[in-house]
Amino acid sequence: MSVVIAGVLVGSIFTSFSLANDTVTADQNVKRQAKIKNVIFLIGDGMGPAYNTAYRYLQDDPSTPYMENTAFDEHFVGMQKTYSWDHEESITDSAAAATSLSSGIKTYNGAIAVDMETQEVPTALELAKKQGKATGLVSTSQINHATPASFGAHDESRHDYDQIAGDYYDELINGEHKIDVMLGGGTDYFVRDDRNLAEEFEQDGYSYVTSKEELQKNQNNQLLGLFAPVGLEYAIDRPDSQPSLEEMTSAALDRLSKDKDGFFLMVEGSEIDWAGHDNDIVAAMSEMKDFEKAYKAAIEFAKKDKHTLVVTTADHSTGGLTMGIDGEYKFDPTAITKAEHTPDYMAEQIADGKEVKDVLTENINFELTSKELTSVQEAAKSEDGTEIDNAIEEIFNKRTGTGWTTGGHDGVDVNVYAYGPQSELFNGLHDNHELGKIMMELMSGKRVK
Amino acid sequence: MSVVIAGVLVGSIFTSFSLANDTVTADQNVKRQAKIKNVIFLIGDGMGPAYNTAYRYLQDDPSTPYMENTAFDEHFVGMQKTYSWDHEESITDSAAAATSLSSGIKTYNGAIAVDMETQEVPTALELAKKQGKATGLVSTSQINHATPASFGAHDESRHDYDQIAGDYYDELINGEHKIDVMLGGGTDYFVRDDRNLAEEFEQDGYSYVTSKEELQKNQNNQLLGLFAPVGLEYAIDRPDSQPSLEEMTSAALDRLSKDKDGFFLMVEGSEIDWAGHDNDIVAAMSEMKDFEKAYKAAIEFAKKDKHTLVVTTADHSTGGLTMGIDGEYKFDPTAITKAEHTPDYMAEQIADGKEVKDVLTENINFELTSKELTSVQEAAKSEDGTEIDNAIEEIFNKRTGTGWTTGGHDGVDVNVYAYGPQSELFNGLHDNHELGKIMMELMSGKRVK
Repeated sequence: MSVVIAGVLVGSIFTSFSLANDTVTADQNVKRQAKIKNVIFLIGDGMGPAYNTAYRYLQDDPSTPYMENTAFDEHFVGMQKTYSWDHEESITDSAAAATSLSSGIKTYNGAIAVDMETQEVPTALELAKKQGKATGLVSTSQINHATPASFGAHDESRHDYDQIAGDYYDELINGEHKIDVMLGGGTDYFVRDDRNLAEEFEQDGYSYVTSKEELQKNQNNQLLGLFAPVGLEYAIDRPDSQPSLEEMTSAALDRLSKDKDGFFLMVEGSEIDWAGHDNDIVAAMSEMKDFEKAYKAAIEFAKKDKHTLVVTTADHSTGGLTMGIDGEYKFDPTAITKAEHTPDYMAEQIADGKEVKDVLTENINFELTSKELTSVQEAAKSEDGTEIDNAIEEIFNKRTGTGWTTGGHDGVDVNVYAYGPQSELFNGLHDNHELGKIMMELMSGKRVK
Repeated sequence: MSVVIAGVLVGSIFTSFSLANDTVTADQNVKRQAKIKNVIFLIGDGMGPAYNTAYRYLQDDPSTPYMENTAFDEHFVGMQKTYSWDHEESITDSAAAATSLSSGIKTYNGAIAVDMETQEVPTALELAKKQGKATGLVSTSQINHATPASFGAHDESRHDYDQIAGDYYDELINGEHKIDVMLGGGTDYFVRDDRNLAEEFEQDGYSYVTSKEELQKNQNNQLLGLFAPVGLEYAIDRPDSQPSLEEMTSAALDRLSKDKDGFFLMVEGSEIDWAGHDNDIVAAMSEMKDFEKAYKAAIEFAKKDKHTLVVTTADHSTGGLTMGIDGEYKFDPTAITKAEHTPDYMAEQIADGKEVKDVLTENINFELTSKELTSVQEAAKSEDGTEIDNAIEEIFNKRTGTGWTTGGHDGVDVNVYAYGPQSELFNGLHDNHELGKIMMELMSGKRVK
């Protein structure tokens, strides 16, 4: 725990210092003196360090000599260790990691805001609600998936999707529902034969919306928005009816910021992880872009507000993504920028019987080699969507120099970004539960001098 | 350059602050107020972030609930971008990266302290010598390999090994040799038919030693120590005649610290990279341990001295190392701790005709499955050392859950560790040339308030 103690010291140094020194800029005074009213916690699920570096290569302006920073880079402050306390597995899953981030404890893989003995532990979102703040969860996965669930529910298992959705309605704090704004996917879990949670929320004064248009028209401060049966489509495949992560984030901020007591908002770029599991660099970068836009919206809000702490990290890295294969000193993201859709999207069309060449020509803006085309045509003979998908992904992996080593998670430390008052507390290397702990202590005033 | 400007501000904040605030500890006052007299720059060649996390797993004490910090972890402050300005390659080599770290500029792959137009650029080591400081280079590779060369020589190409060794002798600063202590491998390049640099150095008052014993007996402040024809053996294979990186580092510090004007010392854990190229996790962790011990010696010196800045980073990541393969949520370094020697060492014995089973039983302290044994026996039929090596490596990769994607370098950002006065300047994300620039500006007093 020595890291946390050092953190406290640095925190108090900055606080007392900024009162005495007149050389700091106005922005720095804001960062150090301001009271934390709001917290925005952004989680890029699966966003290991190679995702951040690869995304920087992707958005680099080749006409300038130095590589441009991404929006994340500007507020990079440290890294965190992601391991869980699972008895069987030594690499974390999203549930254990999100519980560490939401609740400040270590636990086993699959645990949703419960400890090693499956006892419920309080979360940062719940703490905020107890303090009378507005609260929100935003994700591109189903909103009751492991990461948001670890902030808004408690369960022995992440797989209890129906019970987790039920918790969002049933678990009251001071007689009120604990989550004011829920935006993501998941109609399959909320509108069921045995229970219609959307209706129940509506009866309690919430609005329920299911399309981007409805979201944009809605004015209610309490809102359930479910835009897909399970997860939303990947950003570059997303139909007009589904909002971007940025649009959901802004919709949440519009509502939550009306609460005079402040708010707590968790925003997850959920499907960076899904792209990683699929070893799909096109989808991964599409989701990084979607997440970066939401991140920018959060930072812009915080810059204006001056009392909002924005902490951004990953729960773990996924897929063993690396930049470099086959001994070549090359990572060239150009091919990624030429894809109109993900390999998943193309593979589905091909598995449905569309001509391979037509699908690839429509969706990829570079000329395929005959070897590349043949590889997909060969895969198409199987009529197996996964095989076709893998063949298309391989084109992008080879052209870009993208390596993968697993369909699961990997154990490397992940990046931490922080902006706003007390953001210095997140500097350096932390264990993941320490981030949750610091956040909750800041919210409860234990760390503010 | 905004990152550097922010760095300067933070630096001056800390400096002026520590005079006014009485809550800081003595150690913190040292960090912020002390003048930088000495600089120790440690480079883990190829040490991408996964090497640091994997090494933490390796040295974890399983009897405690939280994973212990490595010695590096205690002083983690940020990360850096490693890309070079190569026209052909978008992932750096060691020469370009080391030139950025040694000289504060970007350049092309293969460049040894020359810019894009092959013009020589001044290095931090040369700056130190101009200021009358003592200087040293320590590495486990040949001492004229790319990384040390980028501090002590200038050449259009890293492959000009003989010329680089020549530069160490020929390039004078104020009429003196610019490097006082050189310790590593490389007799092949220094003691040649066409030129005997060891003799030339001896004639100018240097000692020349070629074994650990000679090193330990020697008292001369100017010293060339070459302990192998090219690179030293991997740490766990190293014969008694070859010193550890820690022993070389301590020998250098003993000598350099006698200079009243201070010193500049570069220490490279060179063969972390070589193990990465070979996709050998046993060798990689052996080299991480060797490097960590040298790091600890540097930090201990700095803690006592109070005027020494210690900066530690990698030049790039190698091999596309990841912790996680085949969809399993597992990285288990146990097998690594059971290896008495590297797969290279074992493969060489097998290729020389020794019985596979005998070699593996002698050198691996766990029971091999019959499938594992057979895989090496099959490879042994080829009588090809590389194939045998790969088969043995595969046993360790599979058992530990280690993934690799390339025999070359990979592009992920790498970790930065800093301790001592002004170490806060290295906080956050930097471009690699900015680290070199900050260091040189600190040394020339431009950044000290």
